[in-house]
Amino acid sequence: MIYKHFENCEIGEKVLSRARTITETDVVSFCYLTGNWLQLHSDAEFAKNTIIGERLVQGALVFSLIPGLFIISAPGIIVASYGIDKIRFLKPVKIGDTIHAESEIVEKQDKGDKGGVITQKIEVKNQKGETVQVCLWKMLISREA
Amino acid sequence: MIYKHFENCEIGEKVLSRARTITETDVVSFCYLTGNWLQLHSDAEFAKNTIIGERLVQGALVFSLIPGLFIISAPGIIVASYGIDKIRFLKPVKIGDTIHAESEIVEKQDKGDKGGVITQKIEVKNQKGETVQVCLWKMLISREA
Amino acid sequence: MIYKHFENCEIGEKVLSRARTITETDVVSFCYLTGNWLQLHSDAEFAKNTIIGERLVQGALVFSLIPGLFIISAPGIIVASYGIDKIRFLKPVKIGDTIHAESEIVEKQDKGDKGGVITQKIEVKNQKGETVQVCLWKMLISREA
Amino acid sequence: MIYKHFENCEIGEKVLSRARTITETDVVSFCYLTGNWLQLHSDAEFAKNTIIGERLVQGALVFSLIPGLFIISAPGIIVASYGIDKIRFLKPVKIGDTIHAESEIVEKQDKGDKGGVITQKIEVKNQKGETVQVCLWKMLISREA
Amino acid sequence: MIYKHFENCEIGEKVLSRARTITETDVVSFCYLTGNWLQLHSDAEFAKNTIIGERLVQGALVFSLIPGLFIISAPGIIVASYGIDKIRFLKPVKIGDTIHAESEIVEKQDKGDKGGVITQKIEVKNQKGETVQVCLWKMLISREA
Amino acid sequence: MIYKHFENCEIGEKVLSRARTITETDVVSFCYLTGNWLQLHSDAEFAKNTIIGERLVQGALVFSLIPGLFIISAPGIIVASYGIDKIRFLKPVKIGDTIHAESEIVEKQDKGDKGGVITQKIEVKNQKGETVQVCLWKMLISREA
Repeated sequence: MIYKHFENCEIGEKVLSRARTITETDVVSFCYLTGNWLQLHSDAEFAKNTIIGERLVQGALVFSLIPGLFIISAPGIIVASYGIDKIRFLKPVKIGDTIHAESEIVEKQDKGDKGGVITQKIEVKNQKGETVQVCLWKMLISREA
Repeated sequence: MIYKHFENCEIGEKVLSRARTITETDVVSFCYLTGNWLQLHSDAEFAKNTIIGERLVQGALVFSLIPGLFIISAPGIIVASYGIDKIRFLKPVKIGDTIHAESEIVEKQDKGDKGGVITQKIEVKNQKGETVQVCLWKMLISREA
Repeated sequence: MIYKHFENCEIGEKVLSRARTITETDVVSFCYLTGNWLQLHSDAEFAKNTIIGERLVQGALVFSLIPGLFIISAPGIIVASYGIDKIRFLKPVKIGDTIHAESEIVEKQDKGDKGGVITQKIEVKNQKGETVQVCLWKMLISREA
Repeated sequence: MIYKHFENCEIGEKVLSRARTITETDVVSFCYLTGNWLQLHSDAEFAKNTIIGERLVQGALVFSLIPGLFIISAPGIIVASYGIDKIRFLKPVKIGDTIHAESEIVEKQDKGDKGGVITQKIEVKNQKGETVQVCLWKMLISREA
Repeated sequence: MIYKHFENCEIGEKVLSRARTITETDVVSFCYLTGNWLQLHSDAEFAKNTIIGERLVQGALVFSLIPGLFIISAPGIIVASYGIDKIRFLKPVKIGDTIHAESEIVEKQDKGDKGGVITQKIEVKNQKGETVQVCLWKMLISREA
Repeated sequence: MIYKHFENCEIGEKVLSRARTITETDVVSFCYLTGNWLQLHSDAEFAKNTIIGERLVQGALVFSLIPGLFIISAPGIIVASYGIDKIRFLKPVKIGDTIHAESEIVEKQDKGDKGGVITQKIEVKNQKGETVQVCLWKMLISREA
């Protein structure tokens, strides 16, 4: 994620996030909030008979956790989330896995006075170092002065 | 969203979701779950001085609500969420707005015996009929027999 | 509710509970927990066009709150909740209403050594003193010695 | 539960719900929401010395989950929940059990223009097929035209 | 905690609270609410390499639970929480531990008509009887008449 | 709060936290988590007749929020929370107030190889700049090498 104004961001810059263990509480709370009770995530008997053999963590939950894993430190830097260009769910995340994220700036688009759009490639990895999810997140970043 | 097996899905098919009012409880619960306390969503004094003038609903929350807005009725249809090709945050969503979603099948990719990947264009609209978010969601759908 | 052993309970005894304001957070949290997003409770636009004109508090939420409104003081008194004989939703409860409950012992059934079943008539009232819900709750209560 | 207008409902019609695993998160969240911390549900040391030997899922939680286990698909069908005639807690539900519900229409009362009251017998069953809770739920259902 | 008016409280009076098992849901919910994701409480991989070897329950959570462990029975007795003089975290609390609290009145300060300040020493103990936390809590208590 | 190893901390160093609006959801969630339903925080009708005239935010909630308001950035710095020497609730916090915290190092105690105890004076302020709560928090901080 981004802690600097647009003109100070450079392509190739990387940031490593903190890690967090995904608990059953997180998975159930995401069912609560979204009202999505797909059996793959909420029915342990059903999940026993799938390829993975247990309930999976929702891909949209893993995606939603990304910004909070980074330290949101500098008020006024991120103006808005512009959009996401691609999300891919590469490997299953299970209850009890510990994930962190790694971001890299891959594109800068100058938008003049109001700043610019920074595209970051974000890889979410589990405790074994496997990439479980990847996305391209575009954010509008302000200028310094 | 998808209620039919791969071979029964047709390009152009549309589904309309139920509607749900986004409450302050939803916005705060999403801060809770994600640990993302970006001031735009959690600091009412800060938000007064932004262009919108009030706290915004998180884009990732609106995205996360989409599947739950549809009726998840047919166990065994959706095998897995494959990925998202594009998310765009088009208009701000405010606390108290009532959103629903409209999906349309825009692409089918046959994957043989295990089914196929269906791409849906999903538009999230507010109570005024304005499109606030759009995304392209790809899901692996099973065959009937 | 019951704070005494079976042999000390008398028909006609009444207990008054504490009061609690039902907030939007309670209503949304009950949607979360139950996965029941009936529009009457979760869609403010829909609710505007009903007879009441606003979202209603779920009857099952009001029912579920009853035991917690009383002080659960005496461990070992209540052995089990046996069942409920009747619940009637008499008046709508709205977000912001403050409710309390009044219980009265209406029946005792001796079950020998293991205690007995006490039936309580419980009336839930709002801040205007109107009865919004009534039920007959049967509990298995232990003996003193 | 009911997906049809009053005149189309027939006595004997049955509906099967989806299943859901009751997690520790659900039991604790119900303590949270209700403020009812009866030791049987919240104190693992106390529960070790009861007949069941572990914390029980609250009967009112199982009851509250019933409508959400069914697909609430048809807006405008259910006008209001009228009341419940009987709830019986037949077998203990434990953390980790997976429950579903089976409903059957057992009574119809015509109320003229505004529709009618449908009484459903609802049985909640666990993963072994044992009935853990039964109730008679009365709902006011609208007419088609 | 205090159930009597100021003039009826005596130094040396003790009250024993109910017990409650601290679940993973409680620990995660406290991370949610506070936005404090210190790895000691939220990262199971990190916690494996600490002296304790597993995630710890937050000290501030244990402290926050104290009043709710006692029965808050007598409306109008406690006017306000005045402050705390000392909190010490004596032993680690782990997920699954069952805690209760013991309070003792250790000081009375008469404040005239409006009542007085009662200082209580509160010890929180685990299921083995070990004191895990101790604090001195000062509360403003009303007079009877 | 502390982002540096013990030997780099200096008395008089100050850190300013982010701000956060305290919502009704936060107050109700703290009732949920703690099981403390003191009427001052949960009964709007009761609160109308108090000096403040509305429900108050719990002092223990404000205290619990402090660490999360600061950025917890440097893993391995804070070894443990040692204790709190004093908490004073100076002014009421109301639903809708926006609070932040200011910390200042006021004492260092060298504990040799394992680091040292840092005492911080922490003032919580509202949107008007009024100090609503003050505390002295002691933490065990590691050495750099």
